[in-house]
Amino acid sequence: MFNMLTLEDGLENVQGFYCGATNVGMRTNPANSGVSDVDGDVAFIRSSVPCDISAVFTSNTFQAAPIKHFQKYPKDFQTDFVLINAKNANAMTGEKGIEDIESIMTTLSTKHKVLNPVMSSTGVIGYRLPLKKITSAFDKLDFDAKNSHHAARAIMTTDSFKKELAYKVELEDGTSFNIAAICKGAGMINPAMATMLCFVITDADVPKSDMDDLLSNSAEQSFNRISVDGDTSTNDTVMLLANKTSGNYDKVAFREALNKIMFELAMMILRDGEGANKLVAFEVKGAKTIDDAKTASMALSNSLLVKTALFGEDPNWGRIASTIGASGIACSDETLTIHYDDLLIYSSEFRELDKAREDKAYTIMKQESFKVTCDIGLGDANYISYGCDLSYEYVKINAEYRT
Amino acid sequence: MFNMLTLEDGLENVQGFYCGATNVGMRTNPANSGVSDVDGDVAFIRSSVPCDISAVFTSNTFQAAPIKHFQKYPKDFQTDFVLINAKNANAMTGEKGIEDIESIMTTLSTKHKVLNPVMSSTGVIGYRLPLKKITSAFDKLDFDAKNSHHAARAIMTTDSFKKELAYKVELEDGTSFNIAAICKGAGMINPAMATMLCFVITDADVPKSDMDDLLSNSAEQSFNRISVDGDTSTNDTVMLLANKTSGNYDKVAFREALNKIMFELAMMILRDGEGANKLVAFEVKGAKTIDDAKTASMALSNSLLVKTALFGEDPNWGRIASTIGASGIACSDETLTIHYDDLLIYSSEFRELDKAREDKAYTIMKQESFKVTCDIGLGDANYISYGCDLSYEYVKINAEYRT
Repeated sequence: MFNMLTLEDGLENVQGFYCGATNVGMRTNPANSGVSDVDGDVAFIRSSVPCDISAVFTSNTFQAAPIKHFQKYPKDFQTDFVLINAKNANAMTGEKGIEDIESIMTTLSTKHKVLNPVMSSTGVIGYRLPLKKITSAFDKLDFDAKNSHHAARAIMTTDSFKKELAYKVELEDGTSFNIAAICKGAGMINPAMATMLCFVITDADVPKSDMDDLLSNSAEQSFNRISVDGDTSTNDTVMLLANKTSGNYDKVAFREALNKIMFELAMMILRDGEGANKLVAFEVKGAKTIDDAKTASMALSNSLLVKTALFGEDPNWGRIASTIGASGIACSDETLTIHYDDLLIYSSEFRELDKAREDKAYTIMKQESFKVTCDIGLGDANYISYGCDLSYEYVKINAEYRT
Repeated sequence: MFNMLTLEDGLENVQGFYCGATNVGMRTNPANSGVSDVDGDVAFIRSSVPCDISAVFTSNTFQAAPIKHFQKYPKDFQTDFVLINAKNANAMTGEKGIEDIESIMTTLSTKHKVLNPVMSSTGVIGYRLPLKKITSAFDKLDFDAKNSHHAARAIMTTDSFKKELAYKVELEDGTSFNIAAICKGAGMINPAMATMLCFVITDADVPKSDMDDLLSNSAEQSFNRISVDGDTSTNDTVMLLANKTSGNYDKVAFREALNKIMFELAMMILRDGEGANKLVAFEVKGAKTIDDAKTASMALSNSLLVKTALFGEDPNWGRIASTIGASGIACSDETLTIHYDDLLIYSSEFRELDKAREDKAYTIMKQESFKVTCDIGLGDANYISYGCDLSYEYVKINAEYRT
């Protein structure tokens, strides 16, 4: 375990890692126009020594070109360079999309020595990357920068704020390591991952044999439990890069720190959910099986009627009940109970809302964040997922995103 | 087959059937307030002779009390009376909800002789029916009326127009029968059925042995293929009542007429989709299996990103492709093609939209109705479903529905 976990300002203290960004003008390309006035569209993360790398990618069958490019490297390859661009997803671009990445990396290698560089992209689907613009970044980037604020902003699309977190982890034996991440994502977010990119770097001496499991477990507890709109992108990526430079490691402490950083970033994505104003936890407990609990919980965080009722601050528990009934899981209206925070809002004994409980429900729903707990009353399987409301603003952002 | 199918104004010509409605003041109950200024909240359909009845109900586990009440009758029971109310779903009301219906029917039987009366309800979930108000209808209703316009309007909730259709079917042998329906539904609509009620009546001499299959096949081709918001209600009901009074029947002609009437009513529901402006057919063909075709087609008609792109008239085919990839079906971006009407908008040979095709796509998307065809290119299974766009108005209606 760790003695102390200290929040840091940026990625500066993670030993041996460098990052930064530049602006190559992609945000002004009409084909890739967007909502952001962010200064930057190409970012990098690099390590002075080779890193082990683990990654979790989208479940979308049409994985984007950068994901296919990554997967062409041999298993357990090491890398020292990640290039990230916004405004163009390099998805549905076929073999040409992969060749474009190889061409970019060939140009990069003439400017800066790199080992097995990888790429990650977010933006509009279906357009080839603008090669000249992207490679022009290599003349502008300061490869010795440690400017994670700039990098975190450069990878934003419909995000309204940058997402980064860094912790110093002090172990019980007095040694320490650092772990930090930048992340982007606001829409096209689904429990099965979505247009979200997250890059976690650490100088912990974490063995490669631990990395894959820790990363996929952590993704299951964080990014795979959030939903903005139920759509799953072609480009979702979570990467963990470990350069081991601190020489220090404790598996339990590292797992806790990794889980904490990824969960907090997932909640940041949800708080930045397109047009969203509320963050709601949907806990389904007492289900017969974990699959039932997960199915019902995710049905709740994805239901349009539940999401619009949240936006309207309407304590219409009928929509919660109806969504559980529609999810197909084993359930009965005789054993079901529904709570908003600690307020019992439905049970078979207590079917109609009286005025006092309705007033209390309004008070709870006016909060920025609250919890809906549905006890199915048939078993002991639990699952929790996290959703947000659906507002006019979501429709506006997504009706106007590309045009 | 039939010689001729003639559109009629209402249900008046269906022999032996009577219908009408009255207003008992449920629309002014604050707990059940809604958007409608319709004159009427309780409607009836009755036949002068006993009818065979077939019904298809919601797949929601929490079936409403009127559905449970229906199912307590013995298999193949006959009825001569259907009572329908708006503004209160009588769902999640437990055993009391069923007792309430029995009490209402006992009162009815003192005013009007009925055989195995059934009930159908739509409205807010979780409140007991107002018994006195509903039974006050029996003093006001004209049981000899043939006013289907009034009945069709009285069962509306968020509907913006009444939905009824009636046809006279002339057979090749010179005989004829009549078939007619009233229907309601605008939101909470999903391919697995939703808060939609549809009552089809006929004087055709259709044997009970044909009715169940014909009705469920027809529902599969119509109401089960439309989606407004992917939510499935507790109350969905389609009933077919046949009193055989015409003495005439031809199975093929009857099936065609039933399919036509139910498909057209389903399209009316979609056109009246809450806040919707466009009706879009999503055909998935060339899939490996029919399940794949259905999964992908329904994923398209339910995707928020697809629906908001339709509202924005944005020819962003990347969202179509991404949704197919996310649906988990067997597919490849090399074999996939996407058409908007007859415009090829994506193929592996033809990945980027040029200006001419983009302009043509804008023209197609500005139509009130068009078709998106996705050829998976891996097999010969086809499925078509029908969806609509998602506008600010949907959010407004559903954020404000109950409060």
